[in-house]
Amino acid sequence: MRLLLINPNTSASMTEKAAIAARAVAASGTEIIAATSRMGPASIEGYYDGALAVPGLLSELRERRTTGYDGAIIACFDDTGLEAARALCDVPILGLCESAVATAGFLAQRFTVVTTLERSRVLIDNLIQRYGMGGRAKVRASDIAVLELEDAASGAIGKLRAEIERALEEDGAEAIVLGCAGMTDLARELQEIYGVPVIDGVAAAVKQAEALVSLGLSTSKRGSYASPLPKPFSGAMSNFAAKHVPTLT
Amino acid sequence: MRLLLINPNTSASMTEKAAIAARAVAASGTEIIAATSRMGPASIEGYYDGALAVPGLLSELRERRTTGYDGAIIACFDDTGLEAARALCDVPILGLCESAVATAGFLAQRFTVVTTLERSRVLIDNLIQRYGMGGRAKVRASDIAVLELEDAASGAIGKLRAEIERALEEDGAEAIVLGCAGMTDLARELQEIYGVPVIDGVAAAVKQAEALVSLGLSTSKRGSYASPLPKPFSGAMSNFAAKHVPTLT
Amino acid sequence: MRLLLINPNTSASMTEKAAIAARAVAASGTEIIAATSRMGPASIEGYYDGALAVPGLLSELRERRTTGYDGAIIACFDDTGLEAARALCDVPILGLCESAVATAGFLAQRFTVVTTLERSRVLIDNLIQRYGMGGRAKVRASDIAVLELEDAASGAIGKLRAEIERALEEDGAEAIVLGCAGMTDLARELQEIYGVPVIDGVAAAVKQAEALVSLGLSTSKRGSYASPLPKPFSGAMSNFAAKHVPTLT
Amino acid sequence: MRLLLINPNTSASMTEKAAIAARAVAASGTEIIAATSRMGPASIEGYYDGALAVPGLLSELRERRTTGYDGAIIACFDDTGLEAARALCDVPILGLCESAVATAGFLAQRFTVVTTLERSRVLIDNLIQRYGMGGRAKVRASDIAVLELEDAASGAIGKLRAEIERALEEDGAEAIVLGCAGMTDLARELQEIYGVPVIDGVAAAVKQAEALVSLGLSTSKRGSYASPLPKPFSGAMSNFAAKHVPTLT
Amino acid sequence: MRLLLINPNTSASMTEKAAIAARAVAASGTEIIAATSRMGPASIEGYYDGALAVPGLLSELRERRTTGYDGAIIACFDDTGLEAARALCDVPILGLCESAVATAGFLAQRFTVVTTLERSRVLIDNLIQRYGMGGRAKVRASDIAVLELEDAASGAIGKLRAEIERALEEDGAEAIVLGCAGMTDLARELQEIYGVPVIDGVAAAVKQAEALVSLGLSTSKRGSYASPLPKPFSGAMSNFAAKHVPTLT
Amino acid sequence: MRLLLINPNTSASMTEKAAIAARAVAASGTEIIAATSRMGPASIEGYYDGALAVPGLLSELRERRTTGYDGAIIACFDDTGLEAARALCDVPILGLCESAVATAGFLAQRFTVVTTLERSRVLIDNLIQRYGMGGRAKVRASDIAVLELEDAASGAIGKLRAEIERALEEDGAEAIVLGCAGMTDLARELQEIYGVPVIDGVAAAVKQAEALVSLGLSTSKRGSYASPLPKPFSGAMSNFAAKHVPTLT
Repeated sequence: MRLLLINPNTSASMTEKAAIAARAVAASGTEIIAATSRMGPASIEGYYDGALAVPGLLSELRERRTTGYDGAIIACFDDTGLEAARALCDVPILGLCESAVATAGFLAQRFTVVTTLERSRVLIDNLIQRYGMGGRAKVRASDIAVLELEDAASGAIGKLRAEIERALEEDGAEAIVLGCAGMTDLARELQEIYGVPVIDGVAAAVKQAEALVSLGLSTSKRGSYASPLPKPFSGAMSNFAAKHVPTLT
Repeated sequence: MRLLLINPNTSASMTEKAAIAARAVAASGTEIIAATSRMGPASIEGYYDGALAVPGLLSELRERRTTGYDGAIIACFDDTGLEAARALCDVPILGLCESAVATAGFLAQRFTVVTTLERSRVLIDNLIQRYGMGGRAKVRASDIAVLELEDAASGAIGKLRAEIERALEEDGAEAIVLGCAGMTDLARELQEIYGVPVIDGVAAAVKQAEALVSLGLSTSKRGSYASPLPKPFSGAMSNFAAKHVPTLT
Repeated sequence: MRLLLINPNTSASMTEKAAIAARAVAASGTEIIAATSRMGPASIEGYYDGALAVPGLLSELRERRTTGYDGAIIACFDDTGLEAARALCDVPILGLCESAVATAGFLAQRFTVVTTLERSRVLIDNLIQRYGMGGRAKVRASDIAVLELEDAASGAIGKLRAEIERALEEDGAEAIVLGCAGMTDLARELQEIYGVPVIDGVAAAVKQAEALVSLGLSTSKRGSYASPLPKPFSGAMSNFAAKHVPTLT
Repeated sequence: MRLLLINPNTSASMTEKAAIAARAVAASGTEIIAATSRMGPASIEGYYDGALAVPGLLSELRERRTTGYDGAIIACFDDTGLEAARALCDVPILGLCESAVATAGFLAQRFTVVTTLERSRVLIDNLIQRYGMGGRAKVRASDIAVLELEDAASGAIGKLRAEIERALEEDGAEAIVLGCAGMTDLARELQEIYGVPVIDGVAAAVKQAEALVSLGLSTSKRGSYASPLPKPFSGAMSNFAAKHVPTLT
Repeated sequence: MRLLLINPNTSASMTEKAAIAARAVAASGTEIIAATSRMGPASIEGYYDGALAVPGLLSELRERRTTGYDGAIIACFDDTGLEAARALCDVPILGLCESAVATAGFLAQRFTVVTTLERSRVLIDNLIQRYGMGGRAKVRASDIAVLELEDAASGAIGKLRAEIERALEEDGAEAIVLGCAGMTDLARELQEIYGVPVIDGVAAAVKQAEALVSLGLSTSKRGSYASPLPKPFSGAMSNFAAKHVPTLT
Repeated sequence: MRLLLINPNTSASMTEKAAIAARAVAASGTEIIAATSRMGPASIEGYYDGALAVPGLLSELRERRTTGYDGAIIACFDDTGLEAARALCDVPILGLCESAVATAGFLAQRFTVVTTLERSRVLIDNLIQRYGMGGRAKVRASDIAVLELEDAASGAIGKLRAEIERALEEDGAEAIVLGCAGMTDLARELQEIYGVPVIDGVAAAVKQAEALVSLGLSTSKRGSYASPLPKPFSGAMSNFAAKHVPTLT
């Protein structure tokens, strides 16, 4: 099984970190193909960055179909471009937020997502409401810039831990979800410290992708994820007109 | 007051139709500046088209700031790129769906949105749930391709009318919202035929934009619509790195 | 365009304040006809006052139809008698709360309504849930009596500002809605102080009324706002039996 | 125990029918004091009628306190004036809709309310959403005018039965709630015919009132039902200014 | 009227306390038959205890049918086994939580349930969401073990009072629901201290059972509470195969 | 990895069918240990059967800990005893409904669960609301008794297919979830016939269990799934008093 792990931002160091996390949990027969978007922002912090990351993400999904993959993971907790990617491809596409909160739901009845900046808090809260977890999950921002997570001297981990502690105390959180792909290396350690499940979206998404592929399940092409209709595209998007990415057989 | 009416698809004929509708309802002091995206799909039918329309939309918003506008309307019923545009700009940004359902809410307690293709139905239903109208509004698809609305011989209007009649009979609809920018020229006539309010998103959005501008209100820059943070962008998106579009003063 | 601005309480000083606010934002062709109810409580604080204000409100709507108006605004943030007025009249009827929260929804994803007394807090929270903003808006009471807002020496403004500050800090509010018609003169100044949109219901309702009238839209007469059926009325209500208020033509 | 059963419309025949239903289920120590409003519409069909019925209702509640009652029932399925009455009085106040759906909730997980006119359908559906039963209950209109229920030759019962049959078949209803005070005499017979619980609001409200009174529980005076504040009232409402109706001791 | 009050835990002292509370509020013609489960845990604290209490509860319901009862109350605030009991029996079955929150809903628009241990908090919150009170009620744990309530020296009452005070201050609670059958003797006193309605589930359930029985209403046997189908049972459950408990006639 | 697959009903033929389905999708290193409850009903149809199946289920979970398992699956679509099992055990516990609807949520925005009897429809609908999928999923009953699925001549498959066709046509379903463990052998074939994802709960739960175990995640022991407190148990339940089932190390 070949899983494409696409980082929709253009920071190769974050791709590398996510790839390490993904390979650490992948089954023995799973190959993780890590890819970094070549078009868009260096990090995704809010709606503007997210929107401009999508064409680069879709481009990778389309171009890499020739070498083949059985499923793909969008390595950003904002689930950037998730619906568009599902419409484009036949193979299963997983987002980190959707995978992580579904996973948390099997382990705890109430949990808290701890993300980076305040500007992402409501964005993630909206995702969670849409995924049906609005009555079970809270979202907290810890005032960390995404790229600070790459810098051990930034104090980011201290801020993250303080916010987790507030979640346990004030929210009655039974589990913690790490709300940024850049936190993926911290999950194990934080789980040991706090004695509650700590869920990393990258790891969760790898297992969900493996599950769907091995079950022979793929994105529905009936209704809202129907394959794109053929039509002209203009300007820098003109090479996007081709049809959807079929399942390899 | 100058309002930018951006068609996020690249079909100039649809821009023209929307501009006519906008100018027909604009106040005497309002100038409608119609713009067609130069980058992206010829029509927006589903998530894939929508995602690829956003950079072209944001590009118009940025480039036209030098000539100035006081508010902008995204002329697609899917509210394509609405959050990203709000994060980018200080001036008010209106979407058709959000404007139309808020308007309908002042006139009726239960109403139905009639859109084009089945693939857009759930997308719009998700918007409506997010805008808080899930308990009051239903969405129906009438099996019309967006560009068929440009072709009088397509039978599109007959399909649309049949679906409106089902909404009145089966949903107990008290008003009808037309769920596609391409239907904007039909609202008046349908309202006369059926004797219930028929709301067109283009007209609704023009009035909401005028309202916000004249009240001196603008998009909040605190929280989820905070202005984009400066950061590097790569590839075809590299010219998007500049910061947000300030309010003209 | 003639808009009737009815204060459903009997305090002419509040009518005057609301009329000033309304005229300050009305379009050049809009005439604001201010009216004070002649029957009911001097201020509306809670359900009892609200219920007893409705006949006076409906009476004004009926009696003034001979001189004509194209739309009406009920100048109380509790949206007192809004549904009954919509059933009575063909012309658009706007409430302050409904108008203000719809307006806030175009500018911010999360916002807080700051009202006067604790007894009004749940009443407004119920309105907001019904208008579909329950997941996006909080309501706070600032422990001010409505008529204290008329008295500069009452300390009311200090209490209001303290509550706004708590909303920004504790709720993560991206915008503030002023939850009483008596606060209408404070919106501009508070917006400058806090740097977030501050929405006043009177101003919002004027623009919504102008929008609906200029779009040729009116209250649906199908379903829950159908015109009153002719029937006998007894006692002090016996002069209310006449049928609904038709749109002027 | 003395329970005041107030018919908020002015039709004495409906009061009589409701009183018979109330006395049929009242406990041996319960006295039902039937009262007909002397001010307002002859029947309540929609928001306009409802609003104009409230002062008459509140007037009865106030005037009859001298002779005393321990609880009161508002004998209209629209729960006309329920919050205002609760604010006015210390004693428990029950509405038919609230009582009936709470009762139905103990007997069935899904049920349908069958009411009279289409114009009341959404009004009742809004009540049900507010009472928290929106996910469990549907509302259907059977196209019967309220006063047709007083006329055996009107065909009203046939329409009502047809609608109940649709509720059982199409909604999977496990119980039926009769959505009009004028249907109170039909509950027993319909229950026998259809073999599912058929709940009448008058009977349900009597038992809820008895329950609250015998438990020594009364309306909370903290928060949204706090007693009216003393203030001037004008016009025909000027005699309403007095404070709330205290519990008899 | 004979009401079976079953304590689903095996602590006879708690049964006794609940029986005293039940008899204190029962109508003159109501006989309370108190029963203690003979199979299961000594107290119910969380899902595991609750699940293992159900067969003992169902067993009592079945065995006691020969001596007859007209309705039954499950004397645990977790509403342990409520749906299974309703499927088993024709007579009305009441739970404490469902009865108490329905009762509170007639008296207050916002209220707080104060329960014992943190492990029961989310369980009760889930019940409340399901009963439709999620938008109106909060749940708080006061860190009291159930059996501490039997021990005056445990400090349990002090903890309970502190939590009620937080509910009044921080939640804006208009009423308090006591969230454990073991608190039934405290309601009256706490109501006097705090001046808001304090609702005890045992008392509320007795009155609801009396109401349903006297109205001739019983659990719907159509749909989700249909009587058990005959089928083989194995092991210690083999004596449970008999069909449902019919209404006495 | 050793996964315990417990059939909570006592029909060994259904266990065998579920075990075949589980082994067909299990990863190469996963051992499926199939177990049939020895205590309770032969099939689970409604709340009564479900409640009486739980002690047998918990008994298996406890007794088999000596031979060890890393996770467990409760092989009934009603998620019978799921919370109690999670409180008992440290290892992950998966239910079929929760696993299947989470899986469907990755593939489709709207889907329909097709179950057996009408009496299970509302039960499953309640689960789905609680799992947050109420706005996305419908439930349909196909009027099949569970054990009919074991009998090729029963016509059960024809009924099931007819209901799936209604789901596609009337609900706009984008995917189908099979709502009974006894349908597990039909998923592949139905998926080929209808061209939409068809999700079987047994297969979905196996992959979710593998995912959680391989990620080192386990049920939270903080809050609502905290391990049972030590306490006396009486009667046939007296051997249940021991504490929770620890994770094997």
